[in-house]
Amino acid sequence: MKPIALLLLSLILAPVVRAQSDAQIPKTKKPNIIVVFADDLGYGDLGSFGHPTIRTPNLDRMAVEGQKWTSFYAAASVCTPSRAGLLTGRLPVRSGMASNVRRVLFPDSRNGLPQEEVTLAEQLKKAGYATGMVGKWHLGHKDPFLPTRHGFDTYFGIPYSNDMDRVTDVNSAEEYWELWTEHWDELEAADFNVPLMRDTEIIEQPADQNTLTQRYTKEALRWIQQNKEGPFFLYLAHNLPHVPLFTSEAFRGTSLRGLYGDVVEEIDHGVGQILALLKEEGLDQNTLVVFTSDNGPWLPTGISGGTAGMLRNGKGTTWEGGMREPTIFWGPGLIQPKVVAQMGSTLDFLATFSSMAGVPLPEDRVLDGKDLSPVLMGEGKSPREEMFYYRGSDLFALRSGPFKLHLITQNAYVGDVKRIVHDPPLLFNVEQDPSERFDIAAKYPEVVARLQKRAAEHMKNMVKGPDMLKDRE
Amino acid sequence: MKPIALLLLSLILAPVVRAQSDAQIPKTKKPNIIVVFADDLGYGDLGSFGHPTIRTPNLDRMAVEGQKWTSFYAAASVCTPSRAGLLTGRLPVRSGMASNVRRVLFPDSRNGLPQEEVTLAEQLKKAGYATGMVGKWHLGHKDPFLPTRHGFDTYFGIPYSNDMDRVTDVNSAEEYWELWTEHWDELEAADFNVPLMRDTEIIEQPADQNTLTQRYTKEALRWIQQNKEGPFFLYLAHNLPHVPLFTSEAFRGTSLRGLYGDVVEEIDHGVGQILALLKEEGLDQNTLVVFTSDNGPWLPTGISGGTAGMLRNGKGTTWEGGMREPTIFWGPGLIQPKVVAQMGSTLDFLATFSSMAGVPLPEDRVLDGKDLSPVLMGEGKSPREEMFYYRGSDLFALRSGPFKLHLITQNAYVGDVKRIVHDPPLLFNVEQDPSERFDIAAKYPEVVARLQKRAAEHMKNMVKGPDMLKDRE
Repeated sequence: MKPIALLLLSLILAPVVRAQSDAQIPKTKKPNIIVVFADDLGYGDLGSFGHPTIRTPNLDRMAVEGQKWTSFYAAASVCTPSRAGLLTGRLPVRSGMASNVRRVLFPDSRNGLPQEEVTLAEQLKKAGYATGMVGKWHLGHKDPFLPTRHGFDTYFGIPYSNDMDRVTDVNSAEEYWELWTEHWDELEAADFNVPLMRDTEIIEQPADQNTLTQRYTKEALRWIQQNKEGPFFLYLAHNLPHVPLFTSEAFRGTSLRGLYGDVVEEIDHGVGQILALLKEEGLDQNTLVVFTSDNGPWLPTGISGGTAGMLRNGKGTTWEGGMREPTIFWGPGLIQPKVVAQMGSTLDFLATFSSMAGVPLPEDRVLDGKDLSPVLMGEGKSPREEMFYYRGSDLFALRSGPFKLHLITQNAYVGDVKRIVHDPPLLFNVEQDPSERFDIAAKYPEVVARLQKRAAEHMKNMVKGPDMLKDRE
Repeated sequence: MKPIALLLLSLILAPVVRAQSDAQIPKTKKPNIIVVFADDLGYGDLGSFGHPTIRTPNLDRMAVEGQKWTSFYAAASVCTPSRAGLLTGRLPVRSGMASNVRRVLFPDSRNGLPQEEVTLAEQLKKAGYATGMVGKWHLGHKDPFLPTRHGFDTYFGIPYSNDMDRVTDVNSAEEYWELWTEHWDELEAADFNVPLMRDTEIIEQPADQNTLTQRYTKEALRWIQQNKEGPFFLYLAHNLPHVPLFTSEAFRGTSLRGLYGDVVEEIDHGVGQILALLKEEGLDQNTLVVFTSDNGPWLPTGISGGTAGMLRNGKGTTWEGGMREPTIFWGPGLIQPKVVAQMGSTLDFLATFSSMAGVPLPEDRVLDGKDLSPVLMGEGKSPREEMFYYRGSDLFALRSGPFKLHLITQNAYVGDVKRIVHDPPLLFNVEQDPSERFDIAAKYPEVVARLQKRAAEHMKNMVKGPDMLKDRE
C-alpha cells in the first residue's frame, strides 16, 4: 500500500478506532456511585409511583431512562436501623443497631454504629474510591461513630433527625402528632436545635433548616466536581421529607400538595441538578445513581406526612407501607431501562457496588445482601428471593417469592399499638395483593409451613449484636 | 444573483420549506380521535399510575410521550350513567340515565339513551367523520338505543355488562361477592350468556369472553385500516377488567398480579398494537388517542377487582376512588407531553373533540362539558374548574378548585351502605389530601359556605330527564 493510501486509510479508520476505545473505557473503569436517600418518603410520593399532585419530573425521567424497582425494601421501617443496614449490607440486628428498647438513636444516645462493622464506604475505599457523605447520618453523633470514622473522606450534614433537640414544648405523643397535623405552619427553624456538622465539627446550631436541602445539593455538586476524576461514591441522605418540613424560599408554596409537596419537589430539583452536572462533565456514562428512602411515610403526622399509595400502613411497621420504597436506578452508560418487580433491598447495596467496583466481600461475617448487578446490567433474575422484616430486634415477617408471612404485626405510634402474635400466621401474596388485604393462609397451608420453617431456621442461626441503641448518656 | 447561486439557494432552502409545509398539514386536517375506555379499572391499576406488578408498557409509554392527567373524572361512578355522560357531554341525570331506582341498565331493561340526545358520534358525523364503536355499550340493548341508532356507522360488541345474563346460580349479594373473591378461578365463559352483536344483530350467544379483548382489538385495527383516509372517530370500550375476568390463551397466567393483571395487560397490549398501526400508516401525527375508564374499582370483588391506589373507596361511591380515573392523552403531532394535575372529565370529550373537529356545539340544551383543547394543545389553564359528583340522581359532592365538599356520602355494595347526610358537610382539599383523610370544614367555613351556595344554585337549576333506567320489560 502506498503511503498516501495508508494515510487516507488511517484518517478514515481513526474515528472508528477512537470511538471503539471510548466505548470500552466504561467497562474497564470503576463506575462512580451516587446514592440519594430520602427520609420518610412513602411508596406513593413520586409522580412515577402514582402521586397525583407532587411533581417530580427529574425522578420520573430517571425512572423512564433507568430502572424503576417496584419491590425494593429498606432494611428496616425506622431511621437508624434502616441506615445501618444500607451501609453494612447486614440486617441491623446483627450490628446491634436494632433494638426493642429505643427504636432509633437520640441526641442523648451514648453509642452508634460499631467500629468493627465494614461500611459500603470502607469497601469502596479499598478500590480507590473517593467517598463523600452529605446529609443525615443517624448512626451515632459522638466522634467515634461519625461518617469520617466509618470510611467517608468528608461529611457535611446533621447527625440525627431534624425533629430532635426540639425547643418546642411537647408533653405527650398526642401533642406531638397535633404539632404536625394542626400547627405545622406555625413552626420555624429556630424551634429546633439540630446541629449542622462538617466532618467532626459542629459548624451551625441550630441549623437553618430552611436551606438544608439546597445546601446539601450544592455540597453534593461541589464534591462531585472536586472528585470528578473518580472513581467516587457519594451518599447524599436528605433529612426530608421527615418532619419538620422546611424549604428554601424558591419552593415554598409552589406545590399543589402543599408544604410536603414543596419539600419533595425541592429534593427532585436537586436530583435534576446532579444529573445535569453528570452530563455536563461527561460522567453520566460511567455513574450509577440510585434514589430510594429509609422507610415508609410517618402516617400519624397527617398532612405533614407522606403516603404509601396502595401499600398498607407506614413507617414503624412491617406491613409493606413501612419498608417498600420508591426506588430508581439510573446510569445510561451502565444499565438498560426497565421496570423491575423482582425484589431488591438497600441491604444489597454493599454486595452490588462491591461487585461493580471489583472489591471482594468481607468473609469474616454474615452478610445479608445480594449482588443485584445481573439484574441492573443484564437480563438476570434477582438473586434476592426473600426478605426478612424486623421490628426492633424481632423478626415479624418473611417474604419468599410472592408470599409474605406475618408472624407478628403491630401498628405504630398511634391507636392500638399492641403486638399481635399470629398463630396461625397471616399469609399474603404481595404480588397479586400488594395492599395485603386478603389473608390466604388457610388456602395455602404448605406455603405457611415452608415459610414458618424458613423463619425458624433464620431465627435459630441469627446472632444478634449487643444493643447499641439503648444506652443514654 | 447568478443562476448557479439561485440554484444553490433553492437546494439549501428546499428541505426547510418542505418541513414547514409538512408541519402545517395537521393544523388544517381534522384530527382522528380514538377513545379507549376500560371498565372498572382503578386509578392505581397502571404501572405509570403506581401499580407495582401490573405491567402496562404501552400505556406507560403513551403517558410519557403524551399527557398524563391525574385529576380526570368519569361522569359517574357506575357504568351506564358514566357512558351516557361521556357520549352526551351532559351530566347523566339530565338525560334520565342516572336513577335512584336501578343504578344501571340490565338485560330486562326497557329503555336506553334517549334518541333526542346528541352524542359525540353524531357531533363528529357533522364534520364528516367515520364513526365506529367496538366493545361494551350499556346504553340500551333494544334496537332504538343501539350504537348505530346513536351516530355510529358500525358496532361490534356486547350491549351490557359481561356479568349480566348470568347462568351461574347466585341468590344473594353475599354469594355474588363470594363468587369473585373465592371462586373466580372456577368460572368459565359458558357460565354467562351475554350476547355479542354486530350492528343491530346478535352474532354469538353466549359470547366467548375468553377472546373478546383480542377480538375487540382486531376489530379496531381492521376498522382503522378501513377508515384510514379519515377523519375518523373510534370508541373502543373494553368490557374488562369488569368481572368475570377472561383472557386469551396467550395472556392467561402471565401477570404477577394474577388473572386481573393478565386482563389489564392484554388491554395494554391491544393499545400497543393500535399505536403501532397508527405509526405504520403515518396516522400518528394526526390522531389523538385517549385512554381512561368508566369508574373506579369494584372493591367487593376482592382479588378479582382493581385498586384506586391512594384514592379513597371505589366504584359506586362519590369518593375520589369512585370517579377519578387513570387518564392518558396521546398524539405526538397534536399535543405536547406533560403531566396535568388540573381537572378534566369524560364530560369534556364532546366539547373538546367538537372544537378540534370544528363542529359547533348544540345550542338547544345544557352541556356540562368544557373544551380542554387549550390544555391539550397549548399552555392554557383547564376550563374545568368544578366537578359535580352524583350518585344515582342526587348530587352528593362538589369539587371547586382544590376543595371538595361532601353533602352526602354512602358506601357501596357491602357493609353499611346507609346514606349519610352531612350537616355540616365534609370538606377536603383533594390536591393536598388526595386520599380524603382530613376533613377541614371547621377550618375553612367560608369555603364551605361558598361551595354550599354553588351546590344549591346547581340543584335549583337542574332539570332532570325522566328516569330511563327504572322500567323493566
